[in-house]
Amino acid sequence: MRRIGFIAILCIASIGLAANAPEDHSGRLRGYWAQDSQTERDWEGKFMAIPQPDNMRAYMKHLSAYPHHVGSPYDKSNAEWILSKFREFGLDAHIETFYVLFPTPKERRVEMVEPTHFVATLEEPTVPGDPTSSQHAEQLPTYNAYSIDGEVTGPLVYVNYGVPSDYKKLESMGISVKGAIVIARYGHSWRGIKPKVAAEHGAVGCLIYSDPRDDGYYKGNVFPTGAFRPPEGVQRGSVMDITSYSGDPLTPDVGATKDAKRLPLADVKVFTKIPTLPLSYGDAKPLLDALKGPVVPADWRGALGMTYHVGPGPAKVHLVVKSNWDVKPIYDVIAKIPGSVFPGEWIIRGNHHDAWVNGAEDPSSGQASLLEEARALGELLKQGWKPKRTIIYCAWDGEEPGLLGSTEWAEEHAKELEEHSAVYVNSDSNGRGYLGMEGSHTLQKFINGIARDVQDPEKNISVWQRDWDLRIRQAKTPAERQALRQSPDLAIGALGSGSDYTVFLDHLGIASLDLGYGGESNGGIYHSIYDDFYWYTHFDDTRFVYERALAQTAGTAVMRLADADILPLDYSELTDTISTYVDQLKNLLAQEQAETKELDTEIKENVFTATSDPEKTYFPPKPQAMPPFLNFAPLDNAVVALARSSAHYQKALDAAESKDIASLSNASLLTVNQQIIATERQFLTPKGLPGRPWYRHELYAPGTYTGYGVKTLPSVREAIEQRQWDEAGAQIAVVGKTLEEEARAIDAAAANLEKAIQ
Amino acid sequence: MRRIGFIAILCIASIGLAANAPEDHSGRLRGYWAQDSQTERDWEGKFMAIPQPDNMRAYMKHLSAYPHHVGSPYDKSNAEWILSKFREFGLDAHIETFYVLFPTPKERRVEMVEPTHFVATLEEPTVPGDPTSSQHAEQLPTYNAYSIDGEVTGPLVYVNYGVPSDYKKLESMGISVKGAIVIARYGHSWRGIKPKVAAEHGAVGCLIYSDPRDDGYYKGNVFPTGAFRPPEGVQRGSVMDITSYSGDPLTPDVGATKDAKRLPLADVKVFTKIPTLPLSYGDAKPLLDALKGPVVPADWRGALGMTYHVGPGPAKVHLVVKSNWDVKPIYDVIAKIPGSVFPGEWIIRGNHHDAWVNGAEDPSSGQASLLEEARALGELLKQGWKPKRTIIYCAWDGEEPGLLGSTEWAEEHAKELEEHSAVYVNSDSNGRGYLGMEGSHTLQKFINGIARDVQDPEKNISVWQRDWDLRIRQAKTPAERQALRQSPDLAIGALGSGSDYTVFLDHLGIASLDLGYGGESNGGIYHSIYDDFYWYTHFDDTRFVYERALAQTAGTAVMRLADADILPLDYSELTDTISTYVDQLKNLLAQEQAETKELDTEIKENVFTATSDPEKTYFPPKPQAMPPFLNFAPLDNAVVALARSSAHYQKALDAAESKDIASLSNASLLTVNQQIIATERQFLTPKGLPGRPWYRHELYAPGTYTGYGVKTLPSVREAIEQRQWDEAGAQIAVVGKTLEEEARAIDAAAANLEKAIQ
Repeated sequence: MRRIGFIAILCIASIGLAANAPEDHSGRLRGYWAQDSQTERDWEGKFMAIPQPDNMRAYMKHLSAYPHHVGSPYDKSNAEWILSKFREFGLDAHIETFYVLFPTPKERRVEMVEPTHFVATLEEPTVPGDPTSSQHAEQLPTYNAYSIDGEVTGPLVYVNYGVPSDYKKLESMGISVKGAIVIARYGHSWRGIKPKVAAEHGAVGCLIYSDPRDDGYYKGNVFPTGAFRPPEGVQRGSVMDITSYSGDPLTPDVGATKDAKRLPLADVKVFTKIPTLPLSYGDAKPLLDALKGPVVPADWRGALGMTYHVGPGPAKVHLVVKSNWDVKPIYDVIAKIPGSVFPGEWIIRGNHHDAWVNGAEDPSSGQASLLEEARALGELLKQGWKPKRTIIYCAWDGEEPGLLGSTEWAEEHAKELEEHSAVYVNSDSNGRGYLGMEGSHTLQKFINGIARDVQDPEKNISVWQRDWDLRIRQAKTPAERQALRQSPDLAIGALGSGSDYTVFLDHLGIASLDLGYGGESNGGIYHSIYDDFYWYTHFDDTRFVYERALAQTAGTAVMRLADADILPLDYSELTDTISTYVDQLKNLLAQEQAETKELDTEIKENVFTATSDPEKTYFPPKPQAMPPFLNFAPLDNAVVALARSSAHYQKALDAAESKDIASLSNASLLTVNQQIIATERQFLTPKGLPGRPWYRHELYAPGTYTGYGVKTLPSVREAIEQRQWDEAGAQIAVVGKTLEEEARAIDAAAANLEKAIQ
Repeated sequence: MRRIGFIAILCIASIGLAANAPEDHSGRLRGYWAQDSQTERDWEGKFMAIPQPDNMRAYMKHLSAYPHHVGSPYDKSNAEWILSKFREFGLDAHIETFYVLFPTPKERRVEMVEPTHFVATLEEPTVPGDPTSSQHAEQLPTYNAYSIDGEVTGPLVYVNYGVPSDYKKLESMGISVKGAIVIARYGHSWRGIKPKVAAEHGAVGCLIYSDPRDDGYYKGNVFPTGAFRPPEGVQRGSVMDITSYSGDPLTPDVGATKDAKRLPLADVKVFTKIPTLPLSYGDAKPLLDALKGPVVPADWRGALGMTYHVGPGPAKVHLVVKSNWDVKPIYDVIAKIPGSVFPGEWIIRGNHHDAWVNGAEDPSSGQASLLEEARALGELLKQGWKPKRTIIYCAWDGEEPGLLGSTEWAEEHAKELEEHSAVYVNSDSNGRGYLGMEGSHTLQKFINGIARDVQDPEKNISVWQRDWDLRIRQAKTPAERQALRQSPDLAIGALGSGSDYTVFLDHLGIASLDLGYGGESNGGIYHSIYDDFYWYTHFDDTRFVYERALAQTAGTAVMRLADADILPLDYSELTDTISTYVDQLKNLLAQEQAETKELDTEIKENVFTATSDPEKTYFPPKPQAMPPFLNFAPLDNAVVALARSSAHYQKALDAAESKDIASLSNASLLTVNQQIIATERQFLTPKGLPGRPWYRHELYAPGTYTGYGVKTLPSVREAIEQRQWDEAGAQIAVVGKTLEEEARAIDAAAANLEKAIQ
C-alpha cells in the first residue's frame, strides 16, 4: 500500500495557544546538551554524505527483478537477501516468520450476459521493451484480496466512487442497488470501503475499475510512452476491512505464530460481504457503455469518451470470485543496533518489502532507501558512532494484503514494545518532489528541524523551504498565507492508515512518523505489473536523488532521535493541534445545525420540489432532527490543561538546556525519557474506539468510511458525522478525561525534569 | 445568436441604499391610476388565456421547414409569411429591406499535412429519421462568417478556450503561437474573441471546435438518441468583432439602405485578422491527437478520450478560407399598433427570424412566441383594447451574422427612436425551465412584477417563485440566501451583447429587456443543421408550454408598459445596482493591489522557482507595477446624488398614486413620461466608450475580451482590468459626471410629476 496521493502538503501550520519561538536551525539541537549537539551534528554531517544513488538503483533492481508477493519464492528470496545486506552492513539481523491467511485467485470471471455478451480479459499484457512485464507465470493475477468467494448475477449500476454520499445521490434519483452488481471507480476512498458500502446498500457484487480520468490518459501519456495507466492496467489491492483491525484476519491482537490460536474463517468479520474484483478501463468500458438509465451527475463523469449512465442495466453481469484460502509464511527482516546509554529505549524504522507484483515504486523505492540508510549507519558504527538508544531496522513482509508483517510482529512483541518503544519511523513508496511529513504532533517540531537540514536535490534550498514554498503557492486565501508566514513550523498531517505505522501508532500508542517524497512523479502503475524497474527508471526518480534524500531524511531522524539526551518530543504544537481539532468539532456541529435548519427552511419554501425537473425522477430530501447542543467543556478544559502543562514542560526543558548539565546522571535522564514515552501511551483508551477495540488511540484513527483517510479525535468526530448525538456527548467526556490525564503525564515529565536538574 | 447558457439566475438581488418596500403583487400596478390598474388587469387576464401551444408548434414547423439564412430564398419567404401573419392578426405591417455585406463560403479546407495526412470533412451528415437534416442543397456550409480570406500553413497549437488567460498560461510554459494555427474549443467567451486574441499573439490561423465535454456526449446522449452534439455537428457563427460595433460592417452608424455610403472592404476593422473555421469534434480529434509537447493543464482537458497535448506540432495544418463577399438583402418585418393616448411613445418588441440553418430553437422558438403574442394582441384589439402607447412588433432578419436587421433598422430610424422609444423588449431562443430576466435596472422592479403574474407551466407556482427557489438552491453562502430572503425583488442580469437589444440599449440608450426560458432543456445542436423541428419536438419544450409562457411574459410586459399612465421605471433598485457596481470596482482595484503585492512577495520568497518541476519548461511570473490608489469620490458622490433623487422620484410617484388623479391631463403626463424616457438617454456619452465610439452606454457594454459577456461601468472596469490606471481615473470622472446628470434628470422628472399633481 502507500499514501493516497500527497495529502500532507495541503495542511497549514496550526497557530494556537502556545507561543512558538523560532528555533535556531543551524545551532543547538533540541533535547541535546551543547556538547552532545555538536557531536551529533558532526556525525549527521558524515552520515549525509554516505548514501549513493547508484546503490539504491542496484537495490531496487534486485528487489523488483521478479514478482514478490506474499507466498512467492521471490518474496522469501528478497527477505533473505535483505537479511544478508543488513549483515553485510554490520548489523545484527534475523528473520521472524509468521503464518498468515493470504487468499489467492482460484477462479475469476466477469461476464456481461445481457444485452450483449462480453467477457472481461482480466489480463495485463506484456509491454514490449519492459523486460519484467512478461513474467506472467510468476505474476499474481488481478484481484482484490480478502473478497469473499461468490458467484452472482445481477443488473449493473454505476456508483461513481462508491462512497456514502454517492448512494445518497442515487437515492435522490430513485435508484436502488439492491440485488445489483455495482461498478465503482477507484479513488476518493480506500478501496475496501467500496464493497463495504455497496453491501450495506444491498448490492450482491462489486467491481472496481481505474477510470482514465483518475490515473490514465486523462492525466498524461500512458505507459510505455508515458507514466500513466494503459488500458489493460489493473490496480490489485486488499479489500480487507482494515478500519476494524489490520494484520492477519485470523489472529487479531496476537502474533500469527505457527501455533497461535486462530479464528475459524466463518468468524472473521473483516472480509467483504460481497464478491469483489478490480478491472482495467479496457475491461470496464464495454460494461459501462451498455448501461442506460439517467445520465450520471456531472462530477461522476470519467474520461472514457462516452456518456456515462447510472443504470440499473440493461447490462447484466455474471461475477465469479473464488480464492485459495491458504495460510502462507511471511518474513519480517529485523536488524538491531544496540543503544549505548539507553538500550531499553527503541527507535524503530520500517518499510515493507513485499509487493503485489514487481513493485519497483511500491515498495522497493522506500525499501532501497531504508537499506542505504542501514548501510550508512553501519559505516558510522565502524567509525565509532555509538547511538545512545537502540535502533531497530525492519523490512516488513505482507504489508500489501493488510499490514500483516508489521502488525503481527508488533502484536507478538506488544509487551516489549509498550515498554521500550520511543518512536516508529515509516516510509513506503518514494518519488520526486516534496517531502511529505505525517505523524504524531509531538514530533511536528522535531521533523520540521530535520527537514530544515536536508537539501532538496533539484533546488538549492532545504526540503523544508521547498515544502513551505509549495504551501504558499497552493494557499487559497491571504489568511492561509499569513498563517504560514507567521508559523515557525509546517503543520504535519495526521496519520490514517495504509502503511505499516498503523499498529505502532493506533494500537500501541507509539509516536510515529511517515516520510516520503512525491508530488512531481505521478503515474498510473500502482499495484499493476507495470510498477517495475523499467517504469521507475524512465518516469520517476530516474537519477535516484530523491531516493538519497529519503535516506538522508529518515536516517538523520533516526540518528537524532537515538542520540538525544532528552527525547525531542514537543507538547506545545501538539496542544495547538488538538485545540484546532476541538474547534473543528465545534464547527462541524454548528455546521450540521445550520444545515439542518436551512434544509428545514428550504423544504418549507418548497425549494426542492419547485426546482426539480419534471422529466427526471427526483426524491427531495426529508427534514432531519435538529442536532442538539453538546457540552464541549471537557475538551475546552483539557486544552487549557494541556496548554498549561506543555508550557510547564517547555520551561523545564529550557532550564535544563540552559544549565547544560552534561554531567546529569543517565539514571535521572532515563526516568525523564521514560516519562516522555509514557505521555504517548496515555493517548490510548484501554477499551478501544467504539465498535473497533483494536484501534485505541484517542487522537488518530483511519475513518470508518474513508479507510486510509484520517479522522482526528475519531470517537467524537465520527459520532457527530453519523449524527449519533448521545454517543458524541459521551465520547467528548471520555476524550476530555484522556486529555486531562495526558496533561498530568506531561506535568509529571516536566516536574521530574526540574527535579533532575536541581 | 442567443444568450450563452443561463447566466442571470446566478445573480443575487442587490441590497443597498434605497429602502425597498414589498409591492402589493395582486393589487395596484405601479404607474397606474387605480381604475386604470383594474382595467389593465382585466385585459391582461384576457390576454393570458389566448396563446395556444399548438399554434406555436405550427409556426415553428413552418419557420424551420427549410434553411433560412440571410440571402436564402426561404429567409425571404419566411419574412413574407410573417408579414402575412401580422396582417392576418389585424396589425399594420410592412417589410423594410436593407442591403448588407454577408460573406458565404467559397473555399474551405482544413488539412493536416504532417506527421500524417488527414482532411477534415467539414460536413454534417443526414440523420435518419430527422427529415430536414437531408436538405444539403439549401444548407449553408459550416463556417465562421466574416473570417478574412486566407491560405496558411503552420504548426498546430491547442489554446484551450483561446481567451487571454490561456495565452498567459502558454507563456508560462514557454510556448508561443507566432506563425502557428491555433485550435481553440468553443465556450468561455464569444467565439469572435478567439481569432481576435489569437491574432494579437501572432497566430496565422484559427480553428474553433466543439469539444464533447462542453456540449457533446460528456453532457448526455447525442443526437438523434439524445439532445447533445453528435461527432459531426458543427457550430457555425459570426466572428465579426461585435465588441467594436454591430450591424452591417460596411455602414457603421447609418442604415444599410440601397444607396447608403459604404466603407471599402479594406477599411473595415471588424473582420478577423486571420482565417478562421469551425470544426466538429469528429474532425478535430485527429488533429488534436497528432499534437505532442507538454500535456495540457488540468482545466484545459476535454472529453475526447485521449491525452491532450499543447503542441506546437508535430501536427502541421493547411487552412484555406475563402468567401463570396456579397451584399445581400435582409427583410425586417415591422408591425405597428398605434397608441391611443401617447402615440409618440413606443414600446418595441423584437425577435429575429433568420437562422444559420433550419433554426427551430434559434430563433424560431422565440419568433413563434412573438407571433402568438401578436395574434393575442390582435384579438384584444378586436375586443376593444386600446393601448395608450404605440406598440411595434419586429421580426428581425440578419441577426446571426451580426445583429444586422435590428442594427440597420435602428440606425436608419435613429432620430425617431431617440425621440419616441420608451422600452425595447427582446427575446431569442426559448426552452424549458426558468425565466431568464436581463435588462436595464430601471426595469428590474417592473419585470419582477410581470414574473410574479405568470404561472410556471410545470409547477403550481409563479415563474418568479420558481426563479427565487432556484436561486436559493444555487446560493453558495448563507449570506447569499439571506440577501435573497430579504430582498423584495430578484436581481436581473445586465445585458452584454449577442442578441438584438444591443443597438437599442448600447447605441441609442433605450431601456431594454431580454426574456427567455431555459435551464431544463440543454443540448448540443446550436448553430448546426440539427437545430430543427425534429430535435426541438423531441428534446426541448415538446409540449410548447414554455413557448406559451414566453408569449404570456413578454406580451404582458408589452401591454403593461404600453398602458401605464406613468412609465413604470424605477430608480431605487437602479441606484442599489450602480452602488454595487461601484463597490465591485473598488474591490477590483483593491484585489489588483493585493495580488500585485503578493506576487512581489512570492517572487522575493522564490516561491515560483522553488516549486517549479525541473523536468518541465516553466517561466515564472514577473513583478508588476503596483496599481495606484484611484479617486472613487466622483462615483461615490454620484451614488449619493442618485439615492437622493430616486427617493425624491419615489415620493412624487407615491403622492401621485395616492391622489389617484385620473383627471390629470394627458398633456402633463406626456411631459412626465418624456422626462422619464430622457433619464435613459442620459446614460449615453456622446463620444462613446474609449476606443469604440459606437458603444455609448456608460452602464453596460459587451466586454472587449468577453464578447457576449457584459461589463458594467465598462469604461472604468476595463481600464482597471487592463491596468490602464490613468485611463481608469479619467473615466471615473467622466462616469461620475454622467451619473450626476442622471440624478438631475431623475430630479427633474420628480419635480415635474409633483407639479403636475398639484
